[in-house]
Amino acid sequence: MSMPLPSIAEAGEALAARYRRIRRRSLDLCRPLAPEDMTVQSMPDASPAKWHLAHVTWFFERFVLQPNSPGYRIFNEAYDHLFNSYYYTVGQMHLRPQRGLISRPTVAEVMDYRNHVDHAMVPLCEAADDATRFLVTLGLHHEQQHQELLLTDIKHMLAQNPMFPAYDEAAAQASDTQTGLHWIGFPGGLQEIGAEAGDGFVFDNETPRHRVWLEEFELANRPVSHGEYQEFIEDGGYATADLWLSDGWSAVQSGDWRRPLYWQEDDQHLFTLGGIKAIDRDAPVCHLSYYEADAYARWAGARLPTEAEWEIAARQQPAGGNFAESGWFHPRGGDTPGLQQCFGDTWEWTASAYAPYPGFKPLAGSLGEYNGKFMCSQMVLRGGSCVSPGDHLRASYRNFFYPHQRWQFSGLRLARSVP
Amino acid sequence: MSMPLPSIAEAGEALAARYRRIRRRSLDLCRPLAPEDMTVQSMPDASPAKWHLAHVTWFFERFVLQPNSPGYRIFNEAYDHLFNSYYYTVGQMHLRPQRGLISRPTVAEVMDYRNHVDHAMVPLCEAADDATRFLVTLGLHHEQQHQELLLTDIKHMLAQNPMFPAYDEAAAQASDTQTGLHWIGFPGGLQEIGAEAGDGFVFDNETPRHRVWLEEFELANRPVSHGEYQEFIEDGGYATADLWLSDGWSAVQSGDWRRPLYWQEDDQHLFTLGGIKAIDRDAPVCHLSYYEADAYARWAGARLPTEAEWEIAARQQPAGGNFAESGWFHPRGGDTPGLQQCFGDTWEWTASAYAPYPGFKPLAGSLGEYNGKFMCSQMVLRGGSCVSPGDHLRASYRNFFYPHQRWQFSGLRLARSVP
Amino acid sequence: MSMPLPSIAEAGEALAARYRRIRRRSLDLCRPLAPEDMTVQSMPDASPAKWHLAHVTWFFERFVLQPNSPGYRIFNEAYDHLFNSYYYTVGQMHLRPQRGLISRPTVAEVMDYRNHVDHAMVPLCEAADDATRFLVTLGLHHEQQHQELLLTDIKHMLAQNPMFPAYDEAAAQASDTQTGLHWIGFPGGLQEIGAEAGDGFVFDNETPRHRVWLEEFELANRPVSHGEYQEFIEDGGYATADLWLSDGWSAVQSGDWRRPLYWQEDDQHLFTLGGIKAIDRDAPVCHLSYYEADAYARWAGARLPTEAEWEIAARQQPAGGNFAESGWFHPRGGDTPGLQQCFGDTWEWTASAYAPYPGFKPLAGSLGEYNGKFMCSQMVLRGGSCVSPGDHLRASYRNFFYPHQRWQFSGLRLARSVP
Amino acid sequence: MSMPLPSIAEAGEALAARYRRIRRRSLDLCRPLAPEDMTVQSMPDASPAKWHLAHVTWFFERFVLQPNSPGYRIFNEAYDHLFNSYYYTVGQMHLRPQRGLISRPTVAEVMDYRNHVDHAMVPLCEAADDATRFLVTLGLHHEQQHQELLLTDIKHMLAQNPMFPAYDEAAAQASDTQTGLHWIGFPGGLQEIGAEAGDGFVFDNETPRHRVWLEEFELANRPVSHGEYQEFIEDGGYATADLWLSDGWSAVQSGDWRRPLYWQEDDQHLFTLGGIKAIDRDAPVCHLSYYEADAYARWAGARLPTEAEWEIAARQQPAGGNFAESGWFHPRGGDTPGLQQCFGDTWEWTASAYAPYPGFKPLAGSLGEYNGKFMCSQMVLRGGSCVSPGDHLRASYRNFFYPHQRWQFSGLRLARSVP
Repeated sequence: MSMPLPSIAEAGEALAARYRRIRRRSLDLCRPLAPEDMTVQSMPDASPAKWHLAHVTWFFERFVLQPNSPGYRIFNEAYDHLFNSYYYTVGQMHLRPQRGLISRPTVAEVMDYRNHVDHAMVPLCEAADDATRFLVTLGLHHEQQHQELLLTDIKHMLAQNPMFPAYDEAAAQASDTQTGLHWIGFPGGLQEIGAEAGDGFVFDNETPRHRVWLEEFELANRPVSHGEYQEFIEDGGYATADLWLSDGWSAVQSGDWRRPLYWQEDDQHLFTLGGIKAIDRDAPVCHLSYYEADAYARWAGARLPTEAEWEIAARQQPAGGNFAESGWFHPRGGDTPGLQQCFGDTWEWTASAYAPYPGFKPLAGSLGEYNGKFMCSQMVLRGGSCVSPGDHLRASYRNFFYPHQRWQFSGLRLARSVP
Repeated sequence: MSMPLPSIAEAGEALAARYRRIRRRSLDLCRPLAPEDMTVQSMPDASPAKWHLAHVTWFFERFVLQPNSPGYRIFNEAYDHLFNSYYYTVGQMHLRPQRGLISRPTVAEVMDYRNHVDHAMVPLCEAADDATRFLVTLGLHHEQQHQELLLTDIKHMLAQNPMFPAYDEAAAQASDTQTGLHWIGFPGGLQEIGAEAGDGFVFDNETPRHRVWLEEFELANRPVSHGEYQEFIEDGGYATADLWLSDGWSAVQSGDWRRPLYWQEDDQHLFTLGGIKAIDRDAPVCHLSYYEADAYARWAGARLPTEAEWEIAARQQPAGGNFAESGWFHPRGGDTPGLQQCFGDTWEWTASAYAPYPGFKPLAGSLGEYNGKFMCSQMVLRGGSCVSPGDHLRASYRNFFYPHQRWQFSGLRLARSVP
Repeated sequence: MSMPLPSIAEAGEALAARYRRIRRRSLDLCRPLAPEDMTVQSMPDASPAKWHLAHVTWFFERFVLQPNSPGYRIFNEAYDHLFNSYYYTVGQMHLRPQRGLISRPTVAEVMDYRNHVDHAMVPLCEAADDATRFLVTLGLHHEQQHQELLLTDIKHMLAQNPMFPAYDEAAAQASDTQTGLHWIGFPGGLQEIGAEAGDGFVFDNETPRHRVWLEEFELANRPVSHGEYQEFIEDGGYATADLWLSDGWSAVQSGDWRRPLYWQEDDQHLFTLGGIKAIDRDAPVCHLSYYEADAYARWAGARLPTEAEWEIAARQQPAGGNFAESGWFHPRGGDTPGLQQCFGDTWEWTASAYAPYPGFKPLAGSLGEYNGKFMCSQMVLRGGSCVSPGDHLRASYRNFFYPHQRWQFSGLRLARSVP
Repeated sequence: MSMPLPSIAEAGEALAARYRRIRRRSLDLCRPLAPEDMTVQSMPDASPAKWHLAHVTWFFERFVLQPNSPGYRIFNEAYDHLFNSYYYTVGQMHLRPQRGLISRPTVAEVMDYRNHVDHAMVPLCEAADDATRFLVTLGLHHEQQHQELLLTDIKHMLAQNPMFPAYDEAAAQASDTQTGLHWIGFPGGLQEIGAEAGDGFVFDNETPRHRVWLEEFELANRPVSHGEYQEFIEDGGYATADLWLSDGWSAVQSGDWRRPLYWQEDDQHLFTLGGIKAIDRDAPVCHLSYYEADAYARWAGARLPTEAEWEIAARQQPAGGNFAESGWFHPRGGDTPGLQQCFGDTWEWTASAYAPYPGFKPLAGSLGEYNGKFMCSQMVLRGGSCVSPGDHLRASYRNFFYPHQRWQFSGLRLARSVP
């Protein structure tokens, strides 16, 4: 019932080099952080930076080295419990909301763990067979996902501090001018979405490629901007019940939501990874829940795109954009012609619940827990953000979060049906 | 942006008769109940029977009489607050979890309220124009929905009592023999689902009729039975993490789920509206959450149908079955040829998240809050149950609940893709 | 280790008459109530009126009839679980917060239960030996305590209803004029408090009589009035942290307390058992938590009396006052000379934590759970209130509640030390 | 209404030396800790080590330097919010349960803060007038209290880690032999307790000295041992409802208590600051809640002493014992003649609720919030523990915690009345 491991065509040496590069990148991202910063868990949804660094390492140890590297010595038996995220078929794990209660291993001990695993991984990469190459590649994409989460979680953690310390003073500088908003039409008909055979690495949830029927539709050329969102606020958006889904209105009431996460009460400043900054009206708005994205779209007389609509439109675009590599760590305005900023800047909420594609088969074994078991009550986001690694994304990539969650760099692009 | 009121072709006298019949039915359902039974709210999801009787009356008063019956005297101004369920555009309502804290109005006072409203409604029905006829019809379908909820909520309330009193000793007697399970194939292709123009009364969420692409699929001829579900339990279904969605496994752990709601710890008896009874292995299993239905399907090597698959299959069947009119108030086995028990017995969880159909427009005004604002985080159920009014259902009817909810008469029918 | 049952000198016929009178009084108090009113539990601290009526009956059945009436037929075995309040040595009881989920037995069935037990109790009273006479007397004082709780709980339940229905329209009419406040001095020295041998019925927690050392002190001639408390509010009492105990300030913040329970937002009206009334500035303030009483006393430059101070002062006064028998059900002003209103009107919070008197021995057996096990984290109140039965109180009587609780008729009298 | 500052006769140089010594001791206690250890808050009752170090420094800055050191430059304005514990008259503070969410200031920055304040404090100590000397002394006792809390909180934090790391491998080595338990009698009569004028530094809550009446009583010569407590467990102590206070039994049920905090499930090992160790049957039991201490005493046919009994007995003993200076950080058995181990090893729960002594006046100004506002719902403990600084204690010293709290080194000594 489960999907066989797809093969990855990459020479061992190239794989080892990529392994080293991506592993090093995780450490680079932690360079501005003190051990104290790397220990705190600011909410159950987030994890300490230290935990991210250890968990991705455990992933290689548990799923690559243990089955494929005879003689590999496990670094610490206790880590199987501490750094397993959610793989119940591996065993019972340390409870997620308690990740911030664990001061040991220290950051230095986690570094030792990383070195120990890297020491075994690099030769394995160089000599890997097809199946192992896939596992390593999966592990590297996994690590890249956690690089994004690490930045997302650090931002949330620093925001709990009334002193609002910056992660990097150089981040989130003044932005470019934004293009005006206009609509771009797309034809309907029987289409195919999902990853194609031979696409290179993809996650199981992007498969199988399958047919969908779409009616003609239009997408906005760019994401909704801060300035446009301010108009929604000024127009009483957060006080108008009939703009909101029922669950969204409950969240507005119980959470006393009056503005996006990280905005300050003056509606003119917001917290960024560069500290408190003036809100740039031209830059795409982010840190919205699905409820806010949906309410904004209703207010604007539009709707969110489905993931099929989004994918069909975006796969005609180059997958470039404002990613983590820019060091900007904040969305910025853009003014390229046509459909712009599909990739990078902000994840875009779609109107699609995260569900298995018809004929979906999860990976075999414990890795089948990676994606499939979350296919309920979450919504799909597309495109990647300013804290995503740039070489990790593609048009068929499906991100997913619960509709109330706001701490991701999540914004929206408007869509509408053609009557 | 919203849907105009569809017209209902029914003579005024027939409408008045239907009004009287359906209103009387609500009271008949309360006949076995003492005022004490009608006052208790057993959980925030449920409402007191007394509240149901008053709320459906308020619906007629607020949405039919007030705008359409000049000179109508409001029975009690306070009821606008007490008996508004969730229409924020009407005003702020009494909090749902506090419905059981309100001893007044008493049942007798609610009966006076009903009489007062009926006294004004009957002449209005007789002389109604098109728009009013629609509103009355909507109100009657609304009341029928609450007739089902009333039974569902009473069952839940009585089940909290360690003495397990029966609602009706005559309910849930011994059942028929169940057919064996076999698969029935359906072709794929471009299909249409949703209510057609001229279908008579439908809810806004069933519209518009629209095209979907389906691959070939198979459905089980009948719902999963108690006996089959007992095998899942005996096989360790509730202790096997990888059968479950992540949220489902959390629910199993936090709720200490070991069996369907209302089953006794011996796994041989269950609470019914007729009191504690031996489990009838032949009857369809119900009171499952979506998580349980999904886990069972995975265990069985199958899946849940999408709502499109279900609708296409079921609309070829007559909409008959074991409904509330039978007085049975419990699913029972069946053995008709072909696809059986699509309607009645148990609601069937589908794999489809409750979402707007492409081009969906809610009803205009406050009635737009009826269905549309719930289109997030809930799953669609189809077909109706043994406590649904029989003349209230159709193949395009969409019911929806959160995946963790179990107190509805909710079961499942297996589906599978054709490779 | 436990206290033997004290003997009660009362002829059997007198006891039977008293039994009938007190039992009838419970029903009289329910006369204004519908079955719906008697079923609702408005919070875990409160119980449905129906539950009170059944529980006090169970107390006689379980502790008097079962051990002393051979051949007595238990009315319903399930009631041992449903109507046990907190006697763990008897068995596990139905959870307190779920008392309002139980619609059966209905009020009518509870009346049958009462009749069944009364039918056996009356002959037993007539022929009772010493030990049984004590148990019956204990049971009657127990029922009187629940008569007060019944009124207290009904008030709380009706107050949840936005229509604020009255329990009795005749209650809480205009009050008398209140005397001015002045201080009355009491000498210090070695004193005795607690119930004396031969005092007639007392609860175990009032014993043993024992010596205490007191310094000279003064008490206010009367309780604090509504008008005086309004001055505290107007002076910013609820916004001044340093007037409050730490736990009290937390309660003010988390509960958003701005005024006593049942006061309306205008600070000019309050809910009474007679419905919404204008606040009578002359009447004693009540429905205060300990925290509020303590903060008021600090604001007034005084303190609360200890229970020893209170008892020594009050036992010189006749135990008369405004009790439930007046039908007033609300505190009212008084102007008798000397120390007034020690009994009735409002319970008076003391500065004393509820603790065992030196040498305290609880009653033997399950009845030892009656009082002793609550001797932690609660504060002593003295004197009785306008909803207490008048013949149930005495100077040595110790009532006790948690410092955050406000739904009792609890006020305060100021005390001060003599420098 | 408040107490004037008492004078402290100590030469400026001696005070400065003591300041340096006590401040250095705080750092010494942190020597075994990594920055990660010093950042985590394991529960709302506990604080990060880093916070303790900063808070005690803020205490000097805010209450000593700001009012008394003209020209003192505040280190960081934000710290007034972050490191205020509970002084509402100073301003609104950072919420206690969120102390562990604050990664900045880092440990290194806190050290800078300490140095900055010390740099101003030392000259101030040398030249201090009477009032300032008192404030400095209060600040040093305050810091000593936090030295104990720091160890207590670190123990709790390390215990959350499934690897159970030791704070100091050398701690909690094998203990001495314990004396047998016997009773020592004390006469009753009119006694005085509380601190005497000229006692040197005392907290306001130890005053005024006042008369109390006591009946003759007996105390056990030593605290209850682990071995004795194991007998209570083996005898079903945690399963016998009538041994427990009502609130205690609730805590047993809701917390699933089966043994003292830090005991392992085998009832043979426990977590110490030296890691997991075999339970030493001879050493005093600790990490008991008041409920457990009370239940044990009831099971043993005894009771807890009142704080007056304890003080009268203990003040005849030298205030020596097993304190933090021993580096043992764990209770150990003793066998000195007479009343032993009154000081050190474990705090001893008393039967006395924490309340103001008759005539109590808190310190003037914000420092009045230090002790007085906690005089409700907490129980008094006496004597100090193996993690208390030895020169910080005296017979009149009153410690206080809520009855459910277990993370302090809290045990008990039995008492009984003489019939």
